[in-house]
Amino acid sequence: MKVTTKEIRVRTRGFTDIIDLTKEVQEIVRESGLREGSVVVFVRGSTASITTIEYEPGLVKKDFAEFLERIAPYDYPYEHHKMWGDDNGSAHLRASLVGPSVVVPFVDGRLLLGTWQQIVLVDFDTRSRDRTVFVQVLGS
Amino acid sequence: MKVTTKEIRVRTRGFTDIIDLTKEVQEIVRESGLREGSVVVFVRGSTASITTIEYEPGLVKKDFAEFLERIAPYDYPYEHHKMWGDDNGSAHLRASLVGPSVVVPFVDGRLLLGTWQQIVLVDFDTRSRDRTVFVQVLGS
Amino acid sequence: MKVTTKEIRVRTRGFTDIIDLTKEVQEIVRESGLREGSVVVFVRGSTASITTIEYEPGLVKKDFAEFLERIAPYDYPYEHHKMWGDDNGSAHLRASLVGPSVVVPFVDGRLLLGTWQQIVLVDFDTRSRDRTVFVQVLGS
Repeated sequence: MKVTTKEIRVRTRGFTDIIDLTKEVQEIVRESGLREGSVVVFVRGSTASITTIEYEPGLVKKDFAEFLERIAPYDYPYEHHKMWGDDNGSAHLRASLVGPSVVVPFVDGRLLLGTWQQIVLVDFDTRSRDRTVFVQVLGS
Repeated sequence: MKVTTKEIRVRTRGFTDIIDLTKEVQEIVRESGLREGSVVVFVRGSTASITTIEYEPGLVKKDFAEFLERIAPYDYPYEHHKMWGDDNGSAHLRASLVGPSVVVPFVDGRLLLGTWQQIVLVDFDTRSRDRTVFVQVLGS
Repeated sequence: MKVTTKEIRVRTRGFTDIIDLTKEVQEIVRESGLREGSVVVFVRGSTASITTIEYEPGLVKKDFAEFLERIAPYDYPYEHHKMWGDDNGSAHLRASLVGPSVVVPFVDGRLLLGTWQQIVLVDFDTRSRDRTVFVQVLGS
């Protein structure tokens, strides 16, 4: 078994901006030359997450953001705001809830995703950010 | 280190149907012959999740489903419904929230789970589905 | 590639007690002697989770706990309470939602975390607990 680690850099708009990384992750697996293993996709930072979703406009432009706004609203008297003069308490809560990483297995060099299942970066922060996503391939 | 990948196929009833996969996953680890490592349990598709839970009827037949119904209700004017004529917007949101995979370490060929902690597939879709869960063992 | 597995034992106070494990996890990676790979951090039990968060008092002493109390309240007629005479139904739901593990890649022996991103144990149980967290390093 071997391991290789790459970075994806992406500029986001924040506010639950959802970016499809599937093609880049699949290409990194292909370039690794490994046939069977798992890829760890991990975002650095505490106001963004990695998950999978069907990448269609209804969900990614509206439903997922509105859902998280209902359960962890932007406009709320978070202690994080009072202590630091920030406005992104909701982003921290959402990121810790959804989580910073996803692990996806591959066989014959192909990710074992469903047709309607994409790997995405979700940026919950309340401004545009330059994000670094680490893509680590472990396998043989 | 070595890697092996197997599939579990299971028919679900949807609507937050929770299926205990612990025994099958433990058996796949045992059959791999590996002693120390981690198992990646990953469900293909964007309306189901993998997590751990105490597999007792109160939680798996009622509490977890009702909890998700409160935070991501079935009956809601999701954009996903308007665009695609579907009724499973809630299933997509819940699946992206809980996540498609869990990674569980093992030592001496045994999963390091608690006694009351089972690995489960949760199918959030709004109909019966035939699901494929990939179980990949990485270790030595 | 090689694998090593260690344990962290920690006494918690329950009720969404959040414990920073970053230093211990980084030290276990360093002691492994491995340069590039991923660490699996997994908590045994069904009423606690592992995630990442900015470890500052506003979020960890107040906001995250209050957020989870709003979406999965302690005081609720859970079936789990009726069947088992327990009071920790909320803890089970929160733990299954946030998840039992996180996977963090490292390069040059250093975890690829952000400056304000810590690996934490979150104990949702409704009493003090002695917790075992497994830290497994896979890499080369």
